[in-house]
Amino acid sequence: MNKLEKYLPAMAWIKEYSTDKLQADAMASFIATILLIPQSMGYALLAGLPAVVGLYAGIIPSILYSLFGTSRTLAVGPVAITSMMTATILAPFAIAGSQHYVAIAIMLAFLSGVFLILMSLLKMGFLSNLLSHPVISGFISASAILIAVGQFKHLIGVQAQGNNLIELGKSMILHINDINLPTVILSIISIFSLLLFKRHLTPMLSKLGLSESTSNMLGKSGPVIVVITTTSCVGAFSLDSLGIKIVGDINNHLPIIPVEYFTLDNMIDLLPGAFLISIVGFVGSVSVAQSFAAKRKQNINPNQELVGLGLANLGAAFSGSFPVTGGFSRSVVNVSAGATTPMAGILTGLLMLFTLLFLTPLFYYLPTAVLASCIITSILQLIDFKEFTRLYHFSKQEAVGLLATFFVVLFISMETGIIVGVSLSLLFFLWHTSHPHIAVVGRLPGTEHFRNVKRFDVETTPSVITVRIDENLFFANARVLEDYVLTLVSQHNDIKHLILMCNAVNMIDASALASLEAIDDRLKSAGVTLHFSEIKGPVMDKLTGSSLIKNLSGQVFLTQHQATKSLTTK
Amino acid sequence: MNKLEKYLPAMAWIKEYSTDKLQADAMASFIATILLIPQSMGYALLAGLPAVVGLYAGIIPSILYSLFGTSRTLAVGPVAITSMMTATILAPFAIAGSQHYVAIAIMLAFLSGVFLILMSLLKMGFLSNLLSHPVISGFISASAILIAVGQFKHLIGVQAQGNNLIELGKSMILHINDINLPTVILSIISIFSLLLFKRHLTPMLSKLGLSESTSNMLGKSGPVIVVITTTSCVGAFSLDSLGIKIVGDINNHLPIIPVEYFTLDNMIDLLPGAFLISIVGFVGSVSVAQSFAAKRKQNINPNQELVGLGLANLGAAFSGSFPVTGGFSRSVVNVSAGATTPMAGILTGLLMLFTLLFLTPLFYYLPTAVLASCIITSILQLIDFKEFTRLYHFSKQEAVGLLATFFVVLFISMETGIIVGVSLSLLFFLWHTSHPHIAVVGRLPGTEHFRNVKRFDVETTPSVITVRIDENLFFANARVLEDYVLTLVSQHNDIKHLILMCNAVNMIDASALASLEAIDDRLKSAGVTLHFSEIKGPVMDKLTGSSLIKNLSGQVFLTQHQATKSLTTK
Repeated sequence: MNKLEKYLPAMAWIKEYSTDKLQADAMASFIATILLIPQSMGYALLAGLPAVVGLYAGIIPSILYSLFGTSRTLAVGPVAITSMMTATILAPFAIAGSQHYVAIAIMLAFLSGVFLILMSLLKMGFLSNLLSHPVISGFISASAILIAVGQFKHLIGVQAQGNNLIELGKSMILHINDINLPTVILSIISIFSLLLFKRHLTPMLSKLGLSESTSNMLGKSGPVIVVITTTSCVGAFSLDSLGIKIVGDINNHLPIIPVEYFTLDNMIDLLPGAFLISIVGFVGSVSVAQSFAAKRKQNINPNQELVGLGLANLGAAFSGSFPVTGGFSRSVVNVSAGATTPMAGILTGLLMLFTLLFLTPLFYYLPTAVLASCIITSILQLIDFKEFTRLYHFSKQEAVGLLATFFVVLFISMETGIIVGVSLSLLFFLWHTSHPHIAVVGRLPGTEHFRNVKRFDVETTPSVITVRIDENLFFANARVLEDYVLTLVSQHNDIKHLILMCNAVNMIDASALASLEAIDDRLKSAGVTLHFSEIKGPVMDKLTGSSLIKNLSGQVFLTQHQATKSLTTK
Repeated sequence: MNKLEKYLPAMAWIKEYSTDKLQADAMASFIATILLIPQSMGYALLAGLPAVVGLYAGIIPSILYSLFGTSRTLAVGPVAITSMMTATILAPFAIAGSQHYVAIAIMLAFLSGVFLILMSLLKMGFLSNLLSHPVISGFISASAILIAVGQFKHLIGVQAQGNNLIELGKSMILHINDINLPTVILSIISIFSLLLFKRHLTPMLSKLGLSESTSNMLGKSGPVIVVITTTSCVGAFSLDSLGIKIVGDINNHLPIIPVEYFTLDNMIDLLPGAFLISIVGFVGSVSVAQSFAAKRKQNINPNQELVGLGLANLGAAFSGSFPVTGGFSRSVVNVSAGATTPMAGILTGLLMLFTLLFLTPLFYYLPTAVLASCIITSILQLIDFKEFTRLYHFSKQEAVGLLATFFVVLFISMETGIIVGVSLSLLFFLWHTSHPHIAVVGRLPGTEHFRNVKRFDVETTPSVITVRIDENLFFANARVLEDYVLTLVSQHNDIKHLILMCNAVNMIDASALASLEAIDDRLKSAGVTLHFSEIKGPVMDKLTGSSLIKNLSGQVFLTQHQATKSLTTK
C-alpha cells in the first residue's frame, strides 16, 4: 500500500477500474438514487429542515466518502437516528425550518466533521467503544419509537414538537382538534400499501418470473411506487386544497445564510451535541461497513473511516446541509442494486445533483404524510425487544443498562439516555472488575498444576500460601487485593510466605503497584515474605526497575511450581 | 463472630477488656486530647467555622466510630483535607462563620453520613476505588498547597477567600495593606518554633534520658507548647490590642440554628459535594486504618468502615458540627500515646466534652495565627513531588493524570480536580484495554505449548490460525477483536479454521458476546469456521446456553493442543 493510497483509499479501486464495473455501478446508482430521494427528503423533515436539504446531504458527502472511506459498499447520507438527534440537538437553538435553524444544522455538521477528523488524528476512535452493545440496543429501539411517534403528527396533519414521549404526547393532544381527515385517510392508505409491498412485492415479482436478484431489488421500490402514485393523485385532483400538506416549491439554490447566525457562543453550546452525534454516527456506520465488508472478505480501517465520515460531514456543512453518516438501509439498496465499487456512491451523488437541479418540480405535490409513512414503516424494524430477553438471560446487570438507556431516551432525551447508558456500562464494568475472582490455590498431587483449594483436593503447606487473582490489577480493584491478602494473613498464624500467582493478570497500573508495595510493607511488618509467580512478559517489563521489585521482601518466580518447590524445601 | 458483633464490632474488644487496658487507654486519651485540641480548632477555622465547632466534632463522632468501626486504632474527627473541602463546598451557600454557614455545614455532615451508610447497604464501597493512586496523590499535594496558602492570611492578619490559588492570590493582594506587623512577627516565631520542635524535640528528649517511646510521644507536643506559650503571652501583655486576632469567647452551648436554614433546595445542591467529601474521606480513612491494622496483624472490614464513618458523620451533624473522617496524624498520636483499644477513642471524646464544658475560657487569648501556623507546618508534609517522578518512570500516562488533577485542584477547584482525575483514569484504562495485546500463536515444536509467532519459532498450518487475546473481552475492546480477526482473515486466503485462544480472558460481557457472534457470522459467510480453546470455567459458565455457543460454526476445545490436533488432522 503506497502513501497516496493510505490517504486516498479510493486509489485502491480506481487503478483496477474497468468499463464492466462502470456499467454495474452506473445501473446501481441510478436505482439507488430513485429509492433514496423520498428517504432523504423524509429524513430532512425529521431533522426539522426543509425537505430539499435532504437532497443536498446526498451529493457532496456521498462523493467525499466514496473517495476517502475504506468500505467498498457503504452508502453515506442522512440517516434516521442522526436526523432525529439533529432535531433534538437543534431544538433549543432555533425554530425548526427557519433560516437560523438551517445555520445551526450546518454548524452541527461542521463540528461533527471536525470531531471525527480530530478523533482520527488523535487516535481517539476507541472512544466510540464506550457505547456498549446494550446501550446501543436500548438507544436505537427507543429512538425508533420516538421517531415513529414524532412522525405521527404528519400522518394526522397536526403540529407537534418535543424531545421525548411526554412532550410529544402533550403537544399532540394540544393540537388534537386540527386533525385533517383527508390526511389521515391518505396516511392509512400509504402505510397499508407500504407494508403490503414490503411483505409481498418481492415474492410476487419472483412468481412473475423475474430473477431472484431483480425481484429483491425491485421489491424495495414500494416507497417509490407509493410516492409516485400519491403525488400524481394529489396533483391531479388538487387534494392539497383539502388540507393535505405537500412538499411544495423546492428552492434548489444553495441557501443564503446570514453570517451573523454563525456565532462562537452557539458553536460552544453545540459541542456536546456534536460530539454525541459524531460518536453515534460513527459506531452505526462502522458496524454496517464491517458487516458488508466481511461478507466479501474485504476489510475496513476504522481510523480511516473517521476521516471519510469526517470529510463527508464537512462536505455536508459546506453544501448547506446537516450531519450524515453511513446507513444500513441505503447501503442495502446500493449493494442489492449491484454496486461493485465506491464509484456507485460518486454517481449517486451526481444523479442526486441532477435531481436537485432539474427534477424538483416533480416533487411539488408530494404529501409530507407519505414521506412520514415511509419513515415509520422503515424505522419500526429497528425496534428490537427480543434483544432485551436475550440479554436478560446472559447478564441481568447489562439488561438493566439497556432498559435504563431505553427509558431515559424515551422519557427524558436522547443525549441524557446515552450519558446514563455509558455511565452505567462503566459502573457495571468497574463493579465487576472490583469484585475479582481470587482463590487460594494448591498443587494437584503429582502434577505441576495448581488449582483452587475450594474446588480440588490439592496439597498445601501452612507456611506457604498461594493466592491467584483472575483479573487485571488496576485502580478499581487494587484495594480489594490489599483487603483480601491482609485478611487472609490475619487469619493464618503459621504463614511465612505468601505467593501471588499472576498468570491471569494482563496489566498492572500505578494504583495496583502502590497497593502491592503496601502489601509487601505490611506483610514485612507482620513477618511474612511476599513472592510473585507467573508474571506475564509485558507486565514484568513494566515492573522491572520499579521500587516494588527493588524492595521486594521475597522473589519473583517464573513458574508457580518453582516457587512452591523452592519455598517449601527451605 | 456472632450477630451482635457483626453490627457492633466494639463487642469484640469489650468482652476482652481489662483494667490494664483501661489504664493504657486512659493515659493515651489524655495525651491525645491535649494534642488534638489546637488541631481540631484549627481545622474548624480552616473549614470556615467558629473554632469551637472543631471541639464538637471531636466528641460524638469519635465515640460512635469507636463503637461501630472495625479499626482498633483509627482516630476519627475533623481532618485537614475534608475541612478544606468543606470550606470550598460551602462557599457558594453562605458567608463563612455565619449561622447559615454552620447550618449548611451540619447538612453536609448529615448527607455525608447518609451517603456512607447507603454505600454500605448497597455494597457500593467499590465506588471509592474510582480514586486511583495518581489522582489521590495529585489531589492531596495540591490540596495541601491550597490549605497552606489559604492559611497564610491568618499569618499576616488579613482577610482573604477563594477556592483556588488564583482567587486566593487576588483576594490577598486586595487586602495587602491590612497586614498586621505584630501578627506577622508572632507567626514567624510560631512557625520557627514548630519546625524546630518537630525536628529536634524527640532527639533532645531522648538525650535527656527519656525512653524512646516517651520521647517519641512528647516529641509531638511542640504545638501544645507553642499554643500554651503564645496564649499566655498574648493574655499577659494584652497583645490582642495590637491587632493580633484571638479565638475569643467560645460559646460552649450547642448552636441554635433556625430551622428555616435547612431547606430541601440547599440539600439537593449539596448532594454532589457531599458525595465527593464522603468518597475522599472514606478512601483516606480506610488506607490509614489498613496501614495501622496490618502492623498488628489486625483486620479491617471496609464495608463496616462505611457504617462506622457514616454514623460518625451523622453524629457530627446532630452535635452541630461538620464532616469528619479517620485521620493519619490523629491516629499516630493515639497509637504512639499507647492506645490499645477503641476505648481510647471513647475516652478522648469524653475528655473533649469536658474541655468544651469547663476549659474553653483558657483558649480566649489563643491567637488564630498560631493555629494557622500549626496547620501549615503539619500540612506541608503531605506535599509529595517525588511521587510524580516515580510515577513518570512507571507510566507516563498515569503521571499525566496526576499532573492534571494537581493543576486543576490548584487553579480551578478541588471538586473539578477530582472529576477530571477520575475521568482521566477511566479514559486511560479504557484506552489501555481497548488496545489489547493480540497475537497469532503457533505450537513450540515437540511441546503442547503455544507461543506468539512473532517471538518464537513455532509450527503453524495455513488453514488453521490461532489468535490469543490477552485481555478481558468487553465493550471497550469488543470491536477491536472484530477488526483484528476480520482483517486477519481478509489477508489469509487459505484459512479454513480460526481458533480464539481465551486463556487470558477473565470476563466476557454482552458487547463482546455480540462481537463474537458477529465474527462467527462474518467468518461463516467467508467460509471460515470459528473455534474456541481454553475458555476459563466462570466465563464458560456464562457462555453456556448463549446463542453464540448454540450457533457456533465450530467447536469449543478445552485445550489449545486438542484444538490444533483435532483441526489439523481433519
